[in-house]
Amino acid sequence: MSLGDDKHAYGVLNERFGTAGRLTAARNLLFWDSQTYMPQGGAWSRGEQLAAIDSTLKDLLTVPDTAELFEAAAADTLTPVEHANLKEMRRQWRHSEAVPKKLLMERARQITALQATWVAAKQSNDFARFAAGFEQLLPLNREMAQAKSAALRLAPYDALLDEFDPGLSTAMIDPIFNDLEKALPPLLAQVIERQASWSKPTPFSGDFSPERQRALSYKLAAAVGHDTKHMRIDPAPHPFTVTGSPGDYRVTTRFDTNNVRFAIMATLHEAGHALYEAGLPRAHAFTPVGAARGATAHESQSLMAEMQASRSYEFLSWLAPQMAEAFGGDPACWTFSNVLNTFRRVGEGFIRVEADEISYPLHVILRYRIERALLAGDLQVAGLPGAWSDLSQTLFGRRPPDHARGCLQDIHWAMGLFGYFPNYALGATMAAQLFERAVKDDPAVREHLARGDYGPYRAWVVPRIHARASQVSFVTLLEDATGAPLSAAALQRHLRRRYLEEPAP
Amino acid sequence: MSLGDDKHAYGVLNERFGTAGRLTAARNLLFWDSQTYMPQGGAWSRGEQLAAIDSTLKDLLTVPDTAELFEAAAADTLTPVEHANLKEMRRQWRHSEAVPKKLLMERARQITALQATWVAAKQSNDFARFAAGFEQLLPLNREMAQAKSAALRLAPYDALLDEFDPGLSTAMIDPIFNDLEKALPPLLAQVIERQASWSKPTPFSGDFSPERQRALSYKLAAAVGHDTKHMRIDPAPHPFTVTGSPGDYRVTTRFDTNNVRFAIMATLHEAGHALYEAGLPRAHAFTPVGAARGATAHESQSLMAEMQASRSYEFLSWLAPQMAEAFGGDPACWTFSNVLNTFRRVGEGFIRVEADEISYPLHVILRYRIERALLAGDLQVAGLPGAWSDLSQTLFGRRPPDHARGCLQDIHWAMGLFGYFPNYALGATMAAQLFERAVKDDPAVREHLARGDYGPYRAWVVPRIHARASQVSFVTLLEDATGAPLSAAALQRHLRRRYLEEPAP
Repeated sequence: MSLGDDKHAYGVLNERFGTAGRLTAARNLLFWDSQTYMPQGGAWSRGEQLAAIDSTLKDLLTVPDTAELFEAAAADTLTPVEHANLKEMRRQWRHSEAVPKKLLMERARQITALQATWVAAKQSNDFARFAAGFEQLLPLNREMAQAKSAALRLAPYDALLDEFDPGLSTAMIDPIFNDLEKALPPLLAQVIERQASWSKPTPFSGDFSPERQRALSYKLAAAVGHDTKHMRIDPAPHPFTVTGSPGDYRVTTRFDTNNVRFAIMATLHEAGHALYEAGLPRAHAFTPVGAARGATAHESQSLMAEMQASRSYEFLSWLAPQMAEAFGGDPACWTFSNVLNTFRRVGEGFIRVEADEISYPLHVILRYRIERALLAGDLQVAGLPGAWSDLSQTLFGRRPPDHARGCLQDIHWAMGLFGYFPNYALGATMAAQLFERAVKDDPAVREHLARGDYGPYRAWVVPRIHARASQVSFVTLLEDATGAPLSAAALQRHLRRRYLEEPAP
Repeated sequence: MSLGDDKHAYGVLNERFGTAGRLTAARNLLFWDSQTYMPQGGAWSRGEQLAAIDSTLKDLLTVPDTAELFEAAAADTLTPVEHANLKEMRRQWRHSEAVPKKLLMERARQITALQATWVAAKQSNDFARFAAGFEQLLPLNREMAQAKSAALRLAPYDALLDEFDPGLSTAMIDPIFNDLEKALPPLLAQVIERQASWSKPTPFSGDFSPERQRALSYKLAAAVGHDTKHMRIDPAPHPFTVTGSPGDYRVTTRFDTNNVRFAIMATLHEAGHALYEAGLPRAHAFTPVGAARGATAHESQSLMAEMQASRSYEFLSWLAPQMAEAFGGDPACWTFSNVLNTFRRVGEGFIRVEADEISYPLHVILRYRIERALLAGDLQVAGLPGAWSDLSQTLFGRRPPDHARGCLQDIHWAMGLFGYFPNYALGATMAAQLFERAVKDDPAVREHLARGDYGPYRAWVVPRIHARASQVSFVTLLEDATGAPLSAAALQRHLRRRYLEEPAP
């Protein structure tokens, strides 16, 4: 530590949180391994290792002298970035400090058990099986929300939101979600009616072997801006991206030979997440201020890649011949018009992660309503399938045919993740705002997509969002980049433009 | 902690060292990843993560109250296994406590730098380039040896030995190495002369693509006793095996299309290491007493697989048709007699890891002599190539043609590993003693090798060595299993039998 006395306390904290950042990155890689290359017999052992890291992190962030150090650091002479870092450290500490270690460990145990139960329950469409475990976990989540509520002086659900997106609250979410909930169902109906007159798309055909899907996936990642020196793509049951390891970006996807669209959209989505990670400033690596600015900003980058850019006329015109080259098969299915016809279809299916751009926010709103009710105790676990079905009827005009395509489709609640879902829809609105502005600032953004090149978008977004990391809130990032506050307006404009005004295939 | 007061101190220590065991296992996996799947751009980031774990481990094992806890634990009511665990914990603590964190971190930095230098220096046969970095590291190793010497009240080199094999000393090594140094060079000359009359082996030929080598490697691992539910094999620049993760065994090997023997022997060697890991008692997983009993015992299992078992008549008679099936090519090269002729050849090459059974211990003795002189300051870095060349002349009757095949061939010194090499030769002697006794106790050990089945050896060795983990020293394990103390006699008997008495191909 070569710091003068004027920032000694800050230095001690910065070193501790830096170690925590490195351990968290290590943890993320161990999780990645468990989903990709680990032999199945390693599950118990890996669970023990992850728990040891979690316990170590908890101890590291709540050393008894921490409160004192934060008090002393407030008087340190700090640069603006250091100030922002101190603020982030304090937030992380408060979240960690709020939850007793006993609760943390008990909750982790329940979550490990419930995830296995969830997999089995989903496979066998057995809600009762899931419910038994979920009823054990839910009170622990309530307890955690209460503990954070008391420590952070926020409403319980807001305290959960704050972990994933500092400062986010139901007061910010509600007007946006109310807007979308009002506007999207009629829009969806309108677009479905418009598309009813389209010819039925020719089904994609060809060699959809994992090898060929993998080769195309690397091409898509390269289009987004990645190189194999710094990234890799592997299949995993539930696509995700490793965060926190500068220079080492790991995207996972799924090579489903019955549904080649899935790998393409999942790869683009995850490549968007990885692009954000790659744009973070190396100088602040592993420190809280150097991390990506929360879940909404992260989703804005993945949904930019998956929704905004990749379903554009320009990108699909590049993608169609790439698919033809990758898979062979019937040339008729790889025409631009057929690819557009396929990727622009809306209103099909019941699965969030396969949803179209218009349905996607509605999927999220459904979960938001339900998890708030569950957490508040206004909805009992036994009532979950019914509430899900009724809300589906209201929002989509139809009910899921089974639990696997209904309330058991997502892993989040089995992982104890409450307060996370809203970010997906907020990310979609943020993506729309950013993309609209980027296109306005630089027409090359769209033009280059026709060559499979996200370069101009990258050049626009990196200094405005990525490079600023966690120095300000995501709302400030967005306002600085676009001049407008977070709202549902840009997303609605975008959806109307793309689905009602652009020519049909 | 549900322990009574009669073992409270022990319980606290056991929990801490258990966390350390889990973090170490996590670290081992992160290292594995760096050698297998990590994109090269991830090196810096991974270095930071490993350093954070090392620093955390150091802190965990040297919490200020540790000495006090060990004192209190001495009065706890403990089972024999807990006693053995306490002893191991104390040893690990003393090793950790002896080295100041500043020295530990500075040494780690030098090692990271020197490893990259070593790779480049070896490639370009540039000793001076390596020497410059090695001269920085060597004093830090001396400093570490001195620090451990003072803390453990052992001679400096013995203090280093003790880390890898508790209780091992030059006083134990010297008589064995002196025996071997006297007996092996004339034996080597005698065998070379005998083999001079053999026909020249038909070179192996066929499709040596990595895919085919990989398929054969999995078959070899299955022969040793592994299943894919619990293990995997991947190529890595320097073959090694991940330790410390029960149920998750990761072997690495190298698929060299110019030298198919390498993958076979490396895979068998590493599968032997993994077999030991798989035989450890799950009940003591992650605790010091539950770990493998040091480097010599570990090498005894790998060299059992690579040398004792796999070069036997029986195993080679099974291996020959497996190679034919795996690689195709000229059937004449896959006859039992040609495979035997190839795998039994001695006295070729200059590389330790490719050496035959007779030369192997001499390679180790050469390094033992040199590293002791380097550490004591009796040999300067500049004098290393000359000393290596002269000792090669004495032991093998010839000098290496370049540094890459001479003093730059091993990574150990670049990794700061001093006191590790002796275990390889001691492992060879232990392997010979164990195998001789196993065969005597159960003739099926050899018989089953002819079917590619290590089962009877496994059944013999697991309860005698693996299942006892670190409850006693490796010398006691060996004596209990064979009724004889560690000596070079069994290895010499074995080598004379195999190379002078068994019929030529």
